[in-house]
Amino acid sequence: MTIRVTVWNEHRHERSDPAVAAVYPDGIHGAIAAGLRQETDLEVATATLDEPEHGLGEAVLANTDVLTWWGHLAHDEVRDDVLERVHARVLDGMGLIVLHSGHFSRIFRRLMGTTCDLTWRESGERERLWVVDPSHPIAAGLETSFVLPEEEMYGEPFDVPAPDRLVLVSWFQGGEIFRSGACYQRGRGRIFYFRPGHETHPTYFDTNVRRVIANAVRWAAAGPGPGGPARAFGHRPEAPETLV
Amino acid sequence: MTIRVTVWNEHRHERSDPAVAAVYPDGIHGAIAAGLRQETDLEVATATLDEPEHGLGEAVLANTDVLTWWGHLAHDEVRDDVLERVHARVLDGMGLIVLHSGHFSRIFRRLMGTTCDLTWRESGERERLWVVDPSHPIAAGLETSFVLPEEEMYGEPFDVPAPDRLVLVSWFQGGEIFRSGACYQRGRGRIFYFRPGHETHPTYFDTNVRRVIANAVRWAAAGPGPGGPARAFGHRPEAPETLV
Amino acid sequence: MTIRVTVWNEHRHERSDPAVAAVYPDGIHGAIAAGLRQETDLEVATATLDEPEHGLGEAVLANTDVLTWWGHLAHDEVRDDVLERVHARVLDGMGLIVLHSGHFSRIFRRLMGTTCDLTWRESGERERLWVVDPSHPIAAGLETSFVLPEEEMYGEPFDVPAPDRLVLVSWFQGGEIFRSGACYQRGRGRIFYFRPGHETHPTYFDTNVRRVIANAVRWAAAGPGPGGPARAFGHRPEAPETLV
Amino acid sequence: MTIRVTVWNEHRHERSDPAVAAVYPDGIHGAIAAGLRQETDLEVATATLDEPEHGLGEAVLANTDVLTWWGHLAHDEVRDDVLERVHARVLDGMGLIVLHSGHFSRIFRRLMGTTCDLTWRESGERERLWVVDPSHPIAAGLETSFVLPEEEMYGEPFDVPAPDRLVLVSWFQGGEIFRSGACYQRGRGRIFYFRPGHETHPTYFDTNVRRVIANAVRWAAAGPGPGGPARAFGHRPEAPETLV
Repeated sequence: MTIRVTVWNEHRHERSDPAVAAVYPDGIHGAIAAGLRQETDLEVATATLDEPEHGLGEAVLANTDVLTWWGHLAHDEVRDDVLERVHARVLDGMGLIVLHSGHFSRIFRRLMGTTCDLTWRESGERERLWVVDPSHPIAAGLETSFVLPEEEMYGEPFDVPAPDRLVLVSWFQGGEIFRSGACYQRGRGRIFYFRPGHETHPTYFDTNVRRVIANAVRWAAAGPGPGGPARAFGHRPEAPETLV
Repeated sequence: MTIRVTVWNEHRHERSDPAVAAVYPDGIHGAIAAGLRQETDLEVATATLDEPEHGLGEAVLANTDVLTWWGHLAHDEVRDDVLERVHARVLDGMGLIVLHSGHFSRIFRRLMGTTCDLTWRESGERERLWVVDPSHPIAAGLETSFVLPEEEMYGEPFDVPAPDRLVLVSWFQGGEIFRSGACYQRGRGRIFYFRPGHETHPTYFDTNVRRVIANAVRWAAAGPGPGGPARAFGHRPEAPETLV
Repeated sequence: MTIRVTVWNEHRHERSDPAVAAVYPDGIHGAIAAGLRQETDLEVATATLDEPEHGLGEAVLANTDVLTWWGHLAHDEVRDDVLERVHARVLDGMGLIVLHSGHFSRIFRRLMGTTCDLTWRESGERERLWVVDPSHPIAAGLETSFVLPEEEMYGEPFDVPAPDRLVLVSWFQGGEIFRSGACYQRGRGRIFYFRPGHETHPTYFDTNVRRVIANAVRWAAAGPGPGGPARAFGHRPEAPETLV
Repeated sequence: MTIRVTVWNEHRHERSDPAVAAVYPDGIHGAIAAGLRQETDLEVATATLDEPEHGLGEAVLANTDVLTWWGHLAHDEVRDDVLERVHARVLDGMGLIVLHSGHFSRIFRRLMGTTCDLTWRESGERERLWVVDPSHPIAAGLETSFVLPEEEMYGEPFDVPAPDRLVLVSWFQGGEIFRSGACYQRGRGRIFYFRPGHETHPTYFDTNVRRVIANAVRWAAAGPGPGGPARAFGHRPEAPETLV
């Protein structure tokens, strides 16, 4: 079964900062989409902030099984109506993969209900990601740990609800740890937060990072689908059993 | 140690509907507060929607350890600034007990990230609440189950994140079940959703209901307090360990 | 991909009690297997207590993706070596579906670490099962609730660890509720406890019950498979990073 | 209210290895007990493997609110009857704090249902423990992280059920991380696994380690106590509601 993925990116750093453009000449979305397009079961499109409706019109979302989200500079420019539309689609079953600085996006904060704040340091230090749940589908094909030679550090505390499932924890050279791969269920929707991906490092070309994102897309698409029980709320005037 | 509780109520039904006023002559908040005032370790105040700042000014919240919340008709009249203030205080450690139709309050929906929708029927039917976690402090002093002879029915599906701890499940005469006592942690704050309490039934005078609310207040106040690690976020320029 | 299922049954009631034999002429395992054989993606075998090694020799388990378990009278006759073998296979990734009175089986108690005790009443009363997690794959194809006209009652408290995911809760005519569909992860293995199935009722011929069991089998088989990170424990003499 | 703590230790290393005896002249239990005795709300006794009934007779357990457990060389010498007695007491409400190599104790494996295996390296490397849940009572009085200058390394994967609450995660100098402070509920009993404490390092004299253990003891004692609903299982012949 083909999974339809929309890769969303703010796409500002790449157009204003030559150092970022050098790393991501096709945009961060371009690199993420290129990785996903190596998978034969995925059908991949992209969308960015400065397109009409941020590229996330009704028809696009209706035809998206899983949305990936990267943003940083312009979280507040995401329109209310698009935010509400994405939120409703997630609760209705669309998967959502939130990447790196997307922790501060409006959609992630809306879904988590917390500040989603953390600590950080732009130091280009070594990051080693450990699989703490080797049974999880998102860990398929990984070794017990893998390394990113240079990344921005994100450290605890990370102000999110306790994950339903914690899959990855990062070790940083400078002494920090971070809950880097975290699964949530909200309504019918599956959400995965994945930490790596600072704009100045070629992280989205890394084999293991690409594997995690592809695995996460498949996991997020594996809900009950339209065949599950209705999300039918509201007045139920007739009791299912006789009132005696 | 004394726990400072603020009992918040919308206080509209009681002023517009004589049937409700007959059940709750001192308001729903009055009945809840009267129950809590029987506990010697609790210091109880009340606040209502139509007071200035909904009775939830900075000073009130700063001196509240646990807030209880009942609303129904006028969720949307809760001001943005008060909503933000309550939200911030919960994340900073204030406990929150959300009662009955408060499931649709702005603060509960904000904290949960979902619609918080459910099914319902105003049928005055029998409700039996079962303790499914006898180890939980909120169950102290309860029997294995207890009965409310007449209540509004709330049924599944209930669109909330899976509770961190599920303490009570309701059985209804008409055939439904409902996750009626559910614990959440968000930031430093402890949140308890407790289902019973329709405005036309004398539920908040019931001994077991009062016991659950008092237990929940104590549970919600039992975090680490100001002695816990700082919620210190943001830039951490110095690595705790030497970068080599 | 074909999923290899082994349906295990104690198979004692059916041979000693004519009333049970009348309901399950091919054994409880026969009825469960017949239901699963209607699914084209499943390859189904059966095994029973009185076969050599209880029908669960090394080769059988090595070729089983998901094991279903029904037992009642003779839990203690399950041999230590078979218990250890099944336990090891679950931790290594075999799915396990524990049915009804299997709550007291040695394998379930071993995996849970608790007594797995509950309350019960053989009263042939009505049971209504509610989906409390409509997003879960085990709920695919179900309505919001479904009815079994006559069943044994199982009631709370149910002495198990809090489920990782709670999918179904039962309402009973006599006033009880029960956490009837509960998911656990242990090691690489996925475990689902499903309540219905007393030997005197034709429960395993019910369409919805069969759907739940088939869904649960697919869910339990959906781990990372052999491609996941090794469950490699023990001495790691070389530090992955240089000790400075 | 005074909490009655029993500090249990295998007490073999200290009697056979002069290097360990030099670090722990009064035994590991002596050091742990000395730390706990600085807390005025705790009443502390000790017990060791080579005492009659391992020092854990019926009367001792009946008068213990929280048991701490350190073992390493002789897990298998713990008698079946004592194991069963401790297990039953935990399910009935006694708290249990499992320390370091106690991960392989019979009681911890029994309660977890998994192998409890992990990776390790005796390298005397630096360990930094991070609080990932600043809201938890076990974190009271800690900084965001604290350091143990020399410890044995424990690394992931750690084969335990996903913790109900994860409080601490360790960073190791050699590149590993580990879920070092993990909370579980089993029956009425609260269980905390706390990683540090190799016999050749003076870890149990460390201020922060002592604070965590004292906090964990208080947390583990904070269940509903004897006032909670009965753990009443078995036959319930009378339906609580009328069968119609």
